[in-house]
Amino acid sequence: MMNRAEELHIPTYDDVLKAHALIKPHIHRTPVLTSSFMNELSGAELFFKCENFQKAGAFKVRGASNAVFGLDQNQISKGVATHSSGNHALSLSYAAGRRSIPVTVVMPKTAPAAKKAAVRGYGGIVVECEPSTSSREAVFAEVVAQSGADFVHPYNDHRVIAGQGTCALELHEDTGTLDAVIAPIGGGGMVSGSCLTLSNIAPATKIYAAEPHNADDAWRSFKAGYIIADDAPQTVADGLKVPLKDLTWHFVSRHVEDILLVTEEEIIDAMYLMWQRMKIVIEPSSAVPVAAILKNRQLFAGKRIGVIITGGNVDLKQLPWMQE
Amino acid sequence: MMNRAEELHIPTYDDVLKAHALIKPHIHRTPVLTSSFMNELSGAELFFKCENFQKAGAFKVRGASNAVFGLDQNQISKGVATHSSGNHALSLSYAAGRRSIPVTVVMPKTAPAAKKAAVRGYGGIVVECEPSTSSREAVFAEVVAQSGADFVHPYNDHRVIAGQGTCALELHEDTGTLDAVIAPIGGGGMVSGSCLTLSNIAPATKIYAAEPHNADDAWRSFKAGYIIADDAPQTVADGLKVPLKDLTWHFVSRHVEDILLVTEEEIIDAMYLMWQRMKIVIEPSSAVPVAAILKNRQLFAGKRIGVIITGGNVDLKQLPWMQE
Repeated sequence: MMNRAEELHIPTYDDVLKAHALIKPHIHRTPVLTSSFMNELSGAELFFKCENFQKAGAFKVRGASNAVFGLDQNQISKGVATHSSGNHALSLSYAAGRRSIPVTVVMPKTAPAAKKAAVRGYGGIVVECEPSTSSREAVFAEVVAQSGADFVHPYNDHRVIAGQGTCALELHEDTGTLDAVIAPIGGGGMVSGSCLTLSNIAPATKIYAAEPHNADDAWRSFKAGYIIADDAPQTVADGLKVPLKDLTWHFVSRHVEDILLVTEEEIIDAMYLMWQRMKIVIEPSSAVPVAAILKNRQLFAGKRIGVIITGGNVDLKQLPWMQE
Repeated sequence: MMNRAEELHIPTYDDVLKAHALIKPHIHRTPVLTSSFMNELSGAELFFKCENFQKAGAFKVRGASNAVFGLDQNQISKGVATHSSGNHALSLSYAAGRRSIPVTVVMPKTAPAAKKAAVRGYGGIVVECEPSTSSREAVFAEVVAQSGADFVHPYNDHRVIAGQGTCALELHEDTGTLDAVIAPIGGGGMVSGSCLTLSNIAPATKIYAAEPHNADDAWRSFKAGYIIADDAPQTVADGLKVPLKDLTWHFVSRHVEDILLVTEEEIIDAMYLMWQRMKIVIEPSSAVPVAAILKNRQLFAGKRIGVIITGGNVDLKQLPWMQE
């Protein structure tokens, strides 16, 4: 039987260090904020790693930049491509723009015009597909065949996971060893990167993932012991609808302490609270771990907890508490 | 003729240094943020002093804390009082709570329930008056007569101005000498404190004030050479409706380079832009200097500019771009 680490190309901690050196000039060293109000409310000492202040508004720029700046000379003229209607599309466009290479993003026709405009704003080419998996795959295959572009998957890519691992590295540098780190889980890119880094530099730090009840495929996978994928779950945390894949499952299944579920109402309440009290704009996905901490006081009270605030890209004219 | 500095009790730079030592344990050292996007847009190098992250959500806690923690033993049992329905009420309640002394705030019956609740949340007593100046003055006089509370005016108070001056002091420490500093102007407390500090430690730094067209009494005063007060101007920047008073006029008339006016639309656009691109929650008043910079490119381009982001207390369910 083939060794799984060879079969899959599992990134190493050394890859995280190399990624950090490579992407540092292109990303922000985001601040770690604290709040006495949130500490009192949770009973824990919380350290918020604010990737909402990151370039392109989300942590995804770490993995995307690592992929883009790691391309060799032969590949750069052909550029990169991805399919995403979220932060990865923006981030890959940003990174490709910084390296002045072509970037194509396949997005469903039905994606919000603002998202297409944002990708184009960073210099990306938007190619539209029908809003179905079969159309997306067909259109994407054609884009890659024509351009020779390198496919940078939003999370199931060793370069992307190593890039995301730089976030926990910076957090650890700023706070010292934490009792636990918690991040939202969708496809598992951020959680995998955090597992990769922390299992090497702080193996005693527990890693929790937080997920919406409405998109609890990672939780069910974790309990079942194999990947379960859902088709189009509905949650306000729109970055967390995608399923685990083999590379992220590798890390999640080995290093995650537990996955905690929260309701839509708990997500919106936590998001509102963070805006109101910490005065920071965070997207619903970022509120998921905050909601999980407030819901599971006994797990976190009295401990030093890192919280990954994954992004701040929201439509300010369509806030979830306006739609209640 | 009486010397005006004796008549008025003009605070000195030494008062600012004493204030800083006194209030430091009770306030945040707020961060100075930068944004490559905002720099490109303005052509200037902007340093945002983020008092929206301050305790109680605004710079006002500096002056309020200086007044409260400077009280002598005889006064502390009698407490403090003020009339305000805005950030000063919250800030004074916060500071009094930290020193465990009584605080009474006279607010019009018609003030939003959320504002009264916030004052009570910090331990303040709310006494309601009719929404008229005569009722407010009568009710306030009664509160002071009964309690012996020390009146802490929102801005026309030497202790308050010295406290607000600590903000420019921190900014200067973090950025070095700037070409200019710009802050919003209402009653002029923050601008006066900035004048007091910068005229002593960085006399070459120009001080600009920014004001809504709809509440341009400070601008008209500045041009006329004497205080002009309006009755109840209407602007989205609700912290800037109040007029200059003799103490703040002292500083504004001597040290301000110019007062720049912006429209309601420009304020809302600048506020939206800051939320969207910098991912920080700022109140409309804080967007006024940002709008002034974007409107007066020729004044600021190529220069290093400090921008006082005065606060972040907004009703998240009533955002101004929702009401267009």
